[in-house]
Amino acid sequence: MEIILAKTAGFCFGVKRATSMAFQEAESGNPDTYTLGSIIHNPQVVEKLASAGVAVKKDVEEIGHGTVIIRSHGVTLQEMERAKDKGLRVVDATCPFVKKAQDLAALLKDQGYFVVIVGDEEHPEVKSIISYGGKDIVVVNSCDKLRTLPKKKKIGVVAQTTQSFDNLKAIVNECLGKAGELRIFNTICGATAIRQDQSRDIAEKVDCMIVVGGYSSANTKRLAEICKEIQPNTHHIEVADELDRAWFKGVKRVGVTAGASTPDWVTDEVVERIKSYEVK
Amino acid sequence: MEIILAKTAGFCFGVKRATSMAFQEAESGNPDTYTLGSIIHNPQVVEKLASAGVAVKKDVEEIGHGTVIIRSHGVTLQEMERAKDKGLRVVDATCPFVKKAQDLAALLKDQGYFVVIVGDEEHPEVKSIISYGGKDIVVVNSCDKLRTLPKKKKIGVVAQTTQSFDNLKAIVNECLGKAGELRIFNTICGATAIRQDQSRDIAEKVDCMIVVGGYSSANTKRLAEICKEIQPNTHHIEVADELDRAWFKGVKRVGVTAGASTPDWVTDEVVERIKSYEVK
Repeated sequence: MEIILAKTAGFCFGVKRATSMAFQEAESGNPDTYTLGSIIHNPQVVEKLASAGVAVKKDVEEIGHGTVIIRSHGVTLQEMERAKDKGLRVVDATCPFVKKAQDLAALLKDQGYFVVIVGDEEHPEVKSIISYGGKDIVVVNSCDKLRTLPKKKKIGVVAQTTQSFDNLKAIVNECLGKAGELRIFNTICGATAIRQDQSRDIAEKVDCMIVVGGYSSANTKRLAEICKEIQPNTHHIEVADELDRAWFKGVKRVGVTAGASTPDWVTDEVVERIKSYEVK
Repeated sequence: MEIILAKTAGFCFGVKRATSMAFQEAESGNPDTYTLGSIIHNPQVVEKLASAGVAVKKDVEEIGHGTVIIRSHGVTLQEMERAKDKGLRVVDATCPFVKKAQDLAALLKDQGYFVVIVGDEEHPEVKSIISYGGKDIVVVNSCDKLRTLPKKKKIGVVAQTTQSFDNLKAIVNECLGKAGELRIFNTICGATAIRQDQSRDIAEKVDCMIVVGGYSSANTKRLAEICKEIQPNTHHIEVADELDRAWFKGVKRVGVTAGASTPDWVTDEVVERIKSYEVK
């Protein structure tokens, strides 16, 4: 059985950076070190970090003193201010691409633009960006919500870093008729699109496709959906123990890909387990 | 024979303003008063103005002293500077909407954008806008020229005031994939679109359509094209004398529309002439 592992599988730049910052804090041995929400959307990493002494807190109010690590998706401006007001030491592990989207939303607000955020309003990254964009703001993941928007003098657009380019394009088209001036910052991170393209290519060549990553990771879920459309024998798992030998019956080629928040050790274990099926 | 005259026929805001400024200068009786190029694209107005003492000069160099009136389409920044350097008195009759497009091209240049002008590069208005946009610039009236454009950090877009919105949209779509930041100023003047829509509506209801305006007027030519697509018995004329009685044989309803640079007296004469056909 041949195994094709996606070159883009695993940690993206922002996740790698955030995880490394969090483990560095853990190693420093300071007591009272917490992350505000999960550092990344991967339970194995969160668990490992907890074993190293860095626990997850849901709210700044739960942290009396010590260090708070800001997760890769970022937090709201208000949460950041509350952490600083409380005198907590803040280690900002926000992905630099998300930070850029936050800063650009703030720039648009300061320059008097009505802000359109292209994204999923329930995603923590989008919640963080919204908080920088002021009150004249709308979050959309399709054109529908925009159709009833009255005309504006100036509209500014930023996107959730993992949005699809086609969706941004459709929304920009709709905004063009709504404003005298339209300013778009394309804050989409190329890594997501490249990972999806590569996984798609692999799914076309194999008889079974394994997508590894957290069940709460939006990008991993999307990756599994894309692969399943091409190869119905696609399975989204978090860890090797979930593998089922029945999936590989008569299979000549297996594809393995992983989300942006899936650590290599988890993916490697999956690959090793699949290899072991052949030996036995 | 019923005659339907388009409510939007005739001078637009910018043409009305420029013509009125030029005739005011003529009335003031100052000698050595010239327009740089035709004040508007209508030979009847230009002729009337010449009779009142204001002649057309093609180049600033042809004017030794006196007053130079800048036509509605505007002139290049360099021509404007040369006129001032020569100590000429400048009366700026540039359409305020064209002036705005010039200013916005200059703003984009000053702020480091690569400038995309949506328009016809041979049109005097576009030539004037180009001169304000610096060296990092391209003029396009379709997407073809953009496809080979390398990626830019920041792209700024302005449009010729008479461009169609659909064309701007297509070009914005192409630019979106070319830049990290895209800033669009929608400088299209609504009057053109409204005039076209109204003429289209009338052409659908009549058996003969007359479009009145200068043969060198781009907006009049476009109006005639639009009407001819709907009503083949459409005729573009400059003056009443060009009317042919044969066009009205068996016709129950005639539509009359006119370009943005067509004076009412010319259109009125056309309407009166058509009416006279019935009496005789």
